[in-house]
Amino acid sequence: MDHRGRQARLQNALERHRLDALLVTHLPNIRYLCGFTGSAGALLVSRSKAAFFTDGRYQEQARSEVQGARVRVAREPSLLSAGAWLKTNRKKAGIGVLGIEDRHLTVAEHNQLAKLVRPGIRIRNSPALVEQARMVKDEEEINCLRSAVHLGSTLFDPLVQAVRPGVSEIQVAAEIEYAARRAGAEAMSFETIIASGPRSALPHGRASRAQIPPNGFVICDFGIILAGYCSDMTRTLHVGSLSVDAQRMYDSVREAQQAAVSKVRPAVTVGEVDRAARQVLIRRGFGKYFTHSTGHGVGLEIHEMPRVATSQHETLQAGMVITIEPGVYVPGVGGVRIEDMVLVTQHGCEVLTPTSKELIKL
Amino acid sequence: MDHRGRQARLQNALERHRLDALLVTHLPNIRYLCGFTGSAGALLVSRSKAAFFTDGRYQEQARSEVQGARVRVAREPSLLSAGAWLKTNRKKAGIGVLGIEDRHLTVAEHNQLAKLVRPGIRIRNSPALVEQARMVKDEEEINCLRSAVHLGSTLFDPLVQAVRPGVSEIQVAAEIEYAARRAGAEAMSFETIIASGPRSALPHGRASRAQIPPNGFVICDFGIILAGYCSDMTRTLHVGSLSVDAQRMYDSVREAQQAAVSKVRPAVTVGEVDRAARQVLIRRGFGKYFTHSTGHGVGLEIHEMPRVATSQHETLQAGMVITIEPGVYVPGVGGVRIEDMVLVTQHGCEVLTPTSKELIKL
Repeated sequence: MDHRGRQARLQNALERHRLDALLVTHLPNIRYLCGFTGSAGALLVSRSKAAFFTDGRYQEQARSEVQGARVRVAREPSLLSAGAWLKTNRKKAGIGVLGIEDRHLTVAEHNQLAKLVRPGIRIRNSPALVEQARMVKDEEEINCLRSAVHLGSTLFDPLVQAVRPGVSEIQVAAEIEYAARRAGAEAMSFETIIASGPRSALPHGRASRAQIPPNGFVICDFGIILAGYCSDMTRTLHVGSLSVDAQRMYDSVREAQQAAVSKVRPAVTVGEVDRAARQVLIRRGFGKYFTHSTGHGVGLEIHEMPRVATSQHETLQAGMVITIEPGVYVPGVGGVRIEDMVLVTQHGCEVLTPTSKELIKL
Repeated sequence: MDHRGRQARLQNALERHRLDALLVTHLPNIRYLCGFTGSAGALLVSRSKAAFFTDGRYQEQARSEVQGARVRVAREPSLLSAGAWLKTNRKKAGIGVLGIEDRHLTVAEHNQLAKLVRPGIRIRNSPALVEQARMVKDEEEINCLRSAVHLGSTLFDPLVQAVRPGVSEIQVAAEIEYAARRAGAEAMSFETIIASGPRSALPHGRASRAQIPPNGFVICDFGIILAGYCSDMTRTLHVGSLSVDAQRMYDSVREAQQAAVSKVRPAVTVGEVDRAARQVLIRRGFGKYFTHSTGHGVGLEIHEMPRVATSQHETLQAGMVITIEPGVYVPGVGGVRIEDMVLVTQHGCEVLTPTSKELIKL
């Protein structure tokens, strides 16, 4: 991965935003910038240099993984060792204004840091510079995402095999998670959602001990992590005899999903993509049952910028990877969601998820 | 679960700390206080009442799960809807001083909230009142933890079956995670650590594509979630022929672990427990290779208060559940860790983890 290039681009952004340095504490941002994959660290990027702070547990790992930054290992938590270093070295390093990631740093951490570095250093909330950079994936990242999506999609066959009345939702999750691990996934990218029958009306119905009923929808939303990158897909199956209403619900969501995908291309705003899905569902009488936004970016994190929501104004750019996942949830009845991962290309988009969206009736 | 009792005790604590209300935003704290298990919400506990804020996705779930608090569903993120409600109702509700969870609220969230409620309401960082209450588990929680630990320990047999030279660490993780799911676990409580050969010198070596080598230690650290409660255990296996040095390393860690467990009883400080393990390892010449603390509380979260570390002064109380997990990590050579979950009882402690600590040689 191009860690040094990413750091250099961040350094240019620091200059534009009049920050002498950024203290990066959000782990996916740290991984993106320097390659460290552990769970405790802080990366200080000044306009000309970078230093990575971690504790004894990660000494070996940091030395083998970190690119483009000097590794400093201390006994105390990495935020404090970064603060102590800043206090001592601020003049030599020319750091008068320090940016922090205010969306990730807690109030308590901020206060600990401020106590160490003030008044010599002024702390400023930085724009989400690293998250903004991460929105557009480079070729290596797109390859990683393709591999993750591909592995994720291979779980669909074992899933369809596992879903049948009387089997618990957790059992279904067990089968696909086992298949994921055997195929080499590092982890699931979020808690597997298997929501059957009336539970399919819960947009986030994690697999429970509930048994698949003889009749109804089963929303299956799952993803894996491979080489750090996440996949995310949803398909909704149906067990038992399918009513005309249920078929109409499924068709409406499918049409909405297709309408949103068709909108995806550079220079279109995420709000327009969201509205494309929403308008179909409103027209079909399901508007009020579509209670979440249409999608989100995916990469090192399962939920990244941009949010694909009505209120958002972000413009799509080639290299972004987003989910398109409208859904309909009728309390007491059931729900349907269909989700693909979509890559924005130069002239349009490519649906990365290869799995069919025909309704599977079991 | 005794949600109403927990809220009442928190309300007493608010009075002692001169807070009119606490805005609880940390999800495990929310679950502890009112039973909500979803992933977006804010619980406002004033001295006489409680209100739970969430968004449309969790409407159904909140209404079925939340105990002792009025549920308010809004379109915007729950923190903002709580802030808007406070702005409008602060006088009627008698809220002039609002506590926040500064260890969990981000700087950005704090600023959004402050913008809504100031100047009518003064925001104060609250002590970790809910985390402190959560340190001591009630009977129902102890039963949940026992069940989780029991389920977790049943994974040890499939683990031992799976570990053999040439098998990848991820494959081993796959087997135990599959067994966990089939046994009804909701999820793993953290990313399974299978660290073999030289990788066993990484205290946090998540299962990788590396193959188990013909010779060396294999640290296996894993846990599951059942009814919301976490289990956590570590055993270290050995493959191939065992050198005298390796046996000595294992025996030293085992002795250190036993020494720390022997210390656990009410009124002893966590620092004393940590030192009991550390002194053994120092005496055996491994002091500098024990690079982390001895343990941590476990409950709704895998890492809770108290931290069992040299620098900590927390006093053990009956009902606390902590891990005891000293380890030794020799870079380039390998490592050993042994971990049990331990319940502090009236007169001593009970090791909850039933699994043998004899070294298993494969």
